[in-house]
Amino acid sequence: MATANPASNSGSSPIEWKTIVEAHERIRPRIHHTPVLTSESLDHLANAHLFFKCENLQKTGSFKIRGATNAIFSLTDEEARRGVVTHSSGNHAAAVACAAAWRGTTAAIVMPKNAPRVKCRAVESYGGKITFCEPVVTARTETAARIQAETGAVMIHPYDDDRIIAGQATAAKELAEDVPELDAVLTPVSGGGLLSGTCLGAKGTWPTVRVYGGEPERADDAYRSWKTGTLQSLESSDTIADGLRASLAPRTFAILQKHLDGILLVSEEEIVSAMKLIWERMKIVIEPSSAVALAPLLRPGGLRELALPDRGSQVTSPRIGVILSGGNVELNW
Amino acid sequence: MATANPASNSGSSPIEWKTIVEAHERIRPRIHHTPVLTSESLDHLANAHLFFKCENLQKTGSFKIRGATNAIFSLTDEEARRGVVTHSSGNHAAAVACAAAWRGTTAAIVMPKNAPRVKCRAVESYGGKITFCEPVVTARTETAARIQAETGAVMIHPYDDDRIIAGQATAAKELAEDVPELDAVLTPVSGGGLLSGTCLGAKGTWPTVRVYGGEPERADDAYRSWKTGTLQSLESSDTIADGLRASLAPRTFAILQKHLDGILLVSEEEIVSAMKLIWERMKIVIEPSSAVALAPLLRPGGLRELALPDRGSQVTSPRIGVILSGGNVELNW
Repeated sequence: MATANPASNSGSSPIEWKTIVEAHERIRPRIHHTPVLTSESLDHLANAHLFFKCENLQKTGSFKIRGATNAIFSLTDEEARRGVVTHSSGNHAAAVACAAAWRGTTAAIVMPKNAPRVKCRAVESYGGKITFCEPVVTARTETAARIQAETGAVMIHPYDDDRIIAGQATAAKELAEDVPELDAVLTPVSGGGLLSGTCLGAKGTWPTVRVYGGEPERADDAYRSWKTGTLQSLESSDTIADGLRASLAPRTFAILQKHLDGILLVSEEEIVSAMKLIWERMKIVIEPSSAVALAPLLRPGGLRELALPDRGSQVTSPRIGVILSGGNVELNW
Repeated sequence: MATANPASNSGSSPIEWKTIVEAHERIRPRIHHTPVLTSESLDHLANAHLFFKCENLQKTGSFKIRGATNAIFSLTDEEARRGVVTHSSGNHAAAVACAAAWRGTTAAIVMPKNAPRVKCRAVESYGGKITFCEPVVTARTETAARIQAETGAVMIHPYDDDRIIAGQATAAKELAEDVPELDAVLTPVSGGGLLSGTCLGAKGTWPTVRVYGGEPERADDAYRSWKTGTLQSLESSDTIADGLRASLAPRTFAILQKHLDGILLVSEEEIVSAMKLIWERMKIVIEPSSAVALAPLLRPGGLRELALPDRGSQVTSPRIGVILSGGNVELNW
């Protein structure tokens, strides 16, 4: 199955297939091999066989622990002694704090002062040290850079980092190993760590699989970048999918340009509706960002947007993997 | 492991171990072998190793499909042709409708006219035919008896039926097979089908295991029956655990008297708190009734209420199975 391996064949991507396999071996003892769940009623609605990779059931409640663990356990002992630093208002913050605790080092986390309390509590529960900053991107990066300069801590960027991308790639690798003959895999896209990793991890395991990103209309920078071939920025976003408010980095965009099959935009209503269906029918808690990967499949003609290859006389439904990226929500009761 | 088999050794219970094994074989091709999930943070709170048997992820969203499938697939062809009838406002209704559809027969379901819309929709989605009645117990049983007399349909009682109890026993049998050396298993108790089945299924697989029921203070008939040794009735109940408003039958009470190790009452606040913890920490949707099995373990001294045998110099935490009975809730958003 390694004949069309995008990771090993890619000239522009420095992430070889071997790197992803090594990342998987490195993190496997510490993370969950998350289950793949199915739902007859959602299959019926989507007119497809859906295979949900449940990263909401992953340690720290999201796939982010894969990349963070790979990055932090790739450090030399000397680097690890200096501690790590990152900036994030969400799941990457908790993942870095948790992985740093596993490695026995310190994690400095820069968070916007309006970050949800539940996210702050998660970081603190893993022993991460929070520094609050103004809720704008420049304040985050400047504060993190200042801490890095003062302490010598190693920066663990949320997605503009090959170790992170290789770690996130292991979710799709596991999915494609557990569920053979997938026609397509969908993930949400924000900074592109999960989506670019999924391109490498899924196609590296199963070369003919198509990979698509789901993105909120209200945070459509990846779609615009993909369409125009030029990296676009995101000024601001108020999408309910609070994990998808970052924009692509050059590193993730380059991988997507080479390997991605498309990006599908979804409305806020479609996100909420898909999220509710998963809670009700599958009895699992996902955050809105996760629903963005399923939402395109539930609308009329959604399946045709994937433009899957004609399967000729084959009349079976397509087999589609959906990566449910996380389950961290604040319950207001 | 069959030396102290409560099912086969029981004089008063007509349910032999062989009956449970046969039930499992009968239903296995149609139901999910549900996963057992764990949570480090809940282990920490309970000071025990908890193993959650996720019947909320079961077909129709609850364990009830086990008993219903066993009962309906135990019918002769002649019986099955006559159709089945039951009365239930909840998960048993959907389970009977679903299992009847699998068997290719009809299901008449008597439901109180104030039954939640979501429960009615579930019954209808499986092709069950609903007859509404006044929301009192006598109206339910009388209406079901009338339909039975008119149509010749076979009554599938929610719990006062050996085929149902043997079916429900398979959840604990699976759990005890998947997780060896359990010290105790907890389930919610209402009519006692799940709890009596759990006594037989768990102790039949692992003879030294203790079995306990969790029950809302506001629907404490099983506790009072257990304490007094005389079957007590439940006048009415407004507990949030809407699946636990029935009372024991002579058949289930007899099994509990012989094999149960205790019943633990929980307050409404403890139910809501346990439910929220499971949603937040484990990222799964459970209904309030399910939380009743965990709630006793989360209060100070909760573990001591189980009065587990002294393990001497052994200092490891006890290993406790918790059966999460269902996940059918109405989401108000």
